[in-house]
Amino acid sequence: MASSVLSSLQDLLPADRLTDDAAVLASYVHDEAEWATFGAPVALARPRTTAEVQAVVLACVRTGTPLVTRGAGTGLSGGANAVDGCVVLSTEKMTAITEINSVERLAVVQPGVVNDHLRAACAEHGLWYPPDPASAPWSTIGGNVATNAGGLCCVKYGVTRDYVLELEVVNGLGEVVRLGRRTAKGVVGYDMVGLMVGSEGTLGVVTEVTVRLRNARAPERTVVGFFDSVVDAGRAVEAIGAGGVVPSALELVDRHCLKAVDDWKNMGLSVDANVVLLGRSDTAGAAGDEEAATMLRCFEESGATFAAASTDAAEAEALFDARRLAYPALERLGPLLTEDVCVPKAAVPEMLARVEAASVRHDVLIANIAHAGDGNLHPLISTPPGDAAAQSRAQAAFRDIIADALALGGTVSGEHGVGLLKRDGLAQELSPQVVAMQRAVKAALDPHGILNPGKVL
Amino acid sequence: MASSVLSSLQDLLPADRLTDDAAVLASYVHDEAEWATFGAPVALARPRTTAEVQAVVLACVRTGTPLVTRGAGTGLSGGANAVDGCVVLSTEKMTAITEINSVERLAVVQPGVVNDHLRAACAEHGLWYPPDPASAPWSTIGGNVATNAGGLCCVKYGVTRDYVLELEVVNGLGEVVRLGRRTAKGVVGYDMVGLMVGSEGTLGVVTEVTVRLRNARAPERTVVGFFDSVVDAGRAVEAIGAGGVVPSALELVDRHCLKAVDDWKNMGLSVDANVVLLGRSDTAGAAGDEEAATMLRCFEESGATFAAASTDAAEAEALFDARRLAYPALERLGPLLTEDVCVPKAAVPEMLARVEAASVRHDVLIANIAHAGDGNLHPLISTPPGDAAAQSRAQAAFRDIIADALALGGTVSGEHGVGLLKRDGLAQELSPQVVAMQRAVKAALDPHGILNPGKVL
Repeated sequence: MASSVLSSLQDLLPADRLTDDAAVLASYVHDEAEWATFGAPVALARPRTTAEVQAVVLACVRTGTPLVTRGAGTGLSGGANAVDGCVVLSTEKMTAITEINSVERLAVVQPGVVNDHLRAACAEHGLWYPPDPASAPWSTIGGNVATNAGGLCCVKYGVTRDYVLELEVVNGLGEVVRLGRRTAKGVVGYDMVGLMVGSEGTLGVVTEVTVRLRNARAPERTVVGFFDSVVDAGRAVEAIGAGGVVPSALELVDRHCLKAVDDWKNMGLSVDANVVLLGRSDTAGAAGDEEAATMLRCFEESGATFAAASTDAAEAEALFDARRLAYPALERLGPLLTEDVCVPKAAVPEMLARVEAASVRHDVLIANIAHAGDGNLHPLISTPPGDAAAQSRAQAAFRDIIADALALGGTVSGEHGVGLLKRDGLAQELSPQVVAMQRAVKAALDPHGILNPGKVL
Repeated sequence: MASSVLSSLQDLLPADRLTDDAAVLASYVHDEAEWATFGAPVALARPRTTAEVQAVVLACVRTGTPLVTRGAGTGLSGGANAVDGCVVLSTEKMTAITEINSVERLAVVQPGVVNDHLRAACAEHGLWYPPDPASAPWSTIGGNVATNAGGLCCVKYGVTRDYVLELEVVNGLGEVVRLGRRTAKGVVGYDMVGLMVGSEGTLGVVTEVTVRLRNARAPERTVVGFFDSVVDAGRAVEAIGAGGVVPSALELVDRHCLKAVDDWKNMGLSVDANVVLLGRSDTAGAAGDEEAATMLRCFEESGATFAAASTDAAEAEALFDARRLAYPALERLGPLLTEDVCVPKAAVPEMLARVEAASVRHDVLIANIAHAGDGNLHPLISTPPGDAAAQSRAQAAFRDIIADALALGGTVSGEHGVGLLKRDGLAQELSPQVVAMQRAVKAALDPHGILNPGKVL
């Protein structure tokens, strides 16, 4: 089978789009979920056009070969990990921004366009593409679509699915189809766009994305709070929700993260606090001043040891950079097991307390970054390299955190996706009947079972 | 089959939930799409609880009986029309508002809750449920979910799907399932909530809806413009889009509509203009003032014969009431064939010109109301009662308008749904491959084919 798909691809694709060089393949076998398993692909395809993607899918259909599509490989759940005998399709050469339209406020891009590149191109037109995962400097729009990526501003502006208007997809039969529409509204047939977004390459291969844009926004105000405990910080988050403020970001970074960033980048951020909350408002005028003042008051009333509106834009940006760099900084210390639970806002203090308890109970370091404003927590379970016992304890803590999130009415994945790491969590979160409905949809749209098999379900 | 489903239901439901009285059934056989066909049901079920809905679905599964679910019956595409031998399930007794939560900003309701009732209940908590179809005083949240209803404020705030977090559904196997989640974010498995929203009762029966809420908004400013032609008004709409303003409403009402409302309600609204545009901004402070000023300038520069910011809230509200009453007012004059095309903003002037041309070409009265700001036009084709020739000409105009919308990059239904009236349009808009994907999803989730058969696809 393997050789037949390769020879089939050699017939269909220009030579520079295809390789089976083992050294090259080795860079394409997994994403950033260090704990997830991966297999050995037989080939890597790097198509440039929709027709070339279609050729790859058809070759896989005809030969019954698994197809694993990947963007930049920044995923954190193993969704893009190779399976044995698969073809890996990388969208890295599909980087065209085809259209930016100021009247309709939309952009059309190939899936390999990097998130920050699209944002920069939109800014030149006074427009803004909101979804901003911390991986934005590297991750692609196609990958963001596959995982329904979130980010920092999602607490106010929603996630990737909220911005996808239309998709061109090569479906499980190898047909090129257009799903959705360019108009502001539309209700003709089922929401196939919404179904594709977040499906992690298991229902089709996205070849073009039309995204909704917003107008460029007003400059943000930043409010900083230091807290002795994550639970105090969690109470501040709950208070902001109860106070009716919808911040444009509300991020939590703990001392483990700040210290790891300092050790790596010498940014001098380590502060006399165990937890930092970073709140932002991009509401223009007096209403924005009020939002910032309310956040400040919520910080103070929740026991902040220090709280202030930042008057120094560079200082505020440095704190947000630290938040974005926390993940790679911690990765330097050893294998990271990344959590992504999301709980109701009112449960944030309790969930943070339970994460802390899991850290103590299992004797593992758990650093915390969080999109705290929407209850999306990323406990990062760090273990020393080569310490099998610690890794086993980390996995026990991971399981406990999942169970705690579900007990508090939360979900096991807020934005990273199921991939491989959260398949057990999915089975705990969804009823068997809902899993059966999802399997029925998968079977209906991927009847040959070739699209990223073994992921999600 | 018919008698067996009836006796089965009699065993399962309290007597007051069920009737086969012909006089009662007659009120439940169609929605407000006067031109759509409908059949004769064998029974009407009005359950109060999820368990009772499940009993109805199971009785239909066991006896192979079609099940047509309806809310208030205000639909405009025939989606809730009975088919021969079906059970009609009305959600009218499921009217509980179970929860309104200020911290999580969400509400949990039964499907029969009227849209305006939910809005009023939220307002007591300083919260707001945005989707506001013109039918809001009568239509239900369940019906709004089934059709993915839009409305006036959707140009800024999105449609029903953007607000549905979680659904309880009785699926095509008669199982009670929970889809989605209460948390702000979540990516565990496929987006079954988005799939159910807008599926017009063909994939499941919704028994509980959890909706996302917003904070109550600032008072709106209204800007009024009079125009000689719909094309001038369309140019103003395009100019507002190009000017970067996202109004909180931008409605078009033509003289036919204002006159019909006057004739009915004596509101004295008929004005010396052929077309009225109503723009609104709910942005607080100086930014809102600027938005209103920009809209005013766009009106003037597009040839408005009169344009002014309204200083009289009652007068502004009367104009919006006229817009909401236009449909029932025109219904009084004879059978209405209602269009619902949605085109890109830049195509609004051309689309309005083509509607006018269709009116002349086919010699039928076409009144226009439109959610102009998002390109969603509702040409209302009016014919005298009992005039078969005029009705035939109206259908020809209807077909032409659909073809024109598609030619301009639009969709055949912006917010009313496919139901029966837009099935041909769906086949024109979607490729055969996409229709096949939709049929595959339908077959996967409704394997017995009992859920609102013959609708949408």
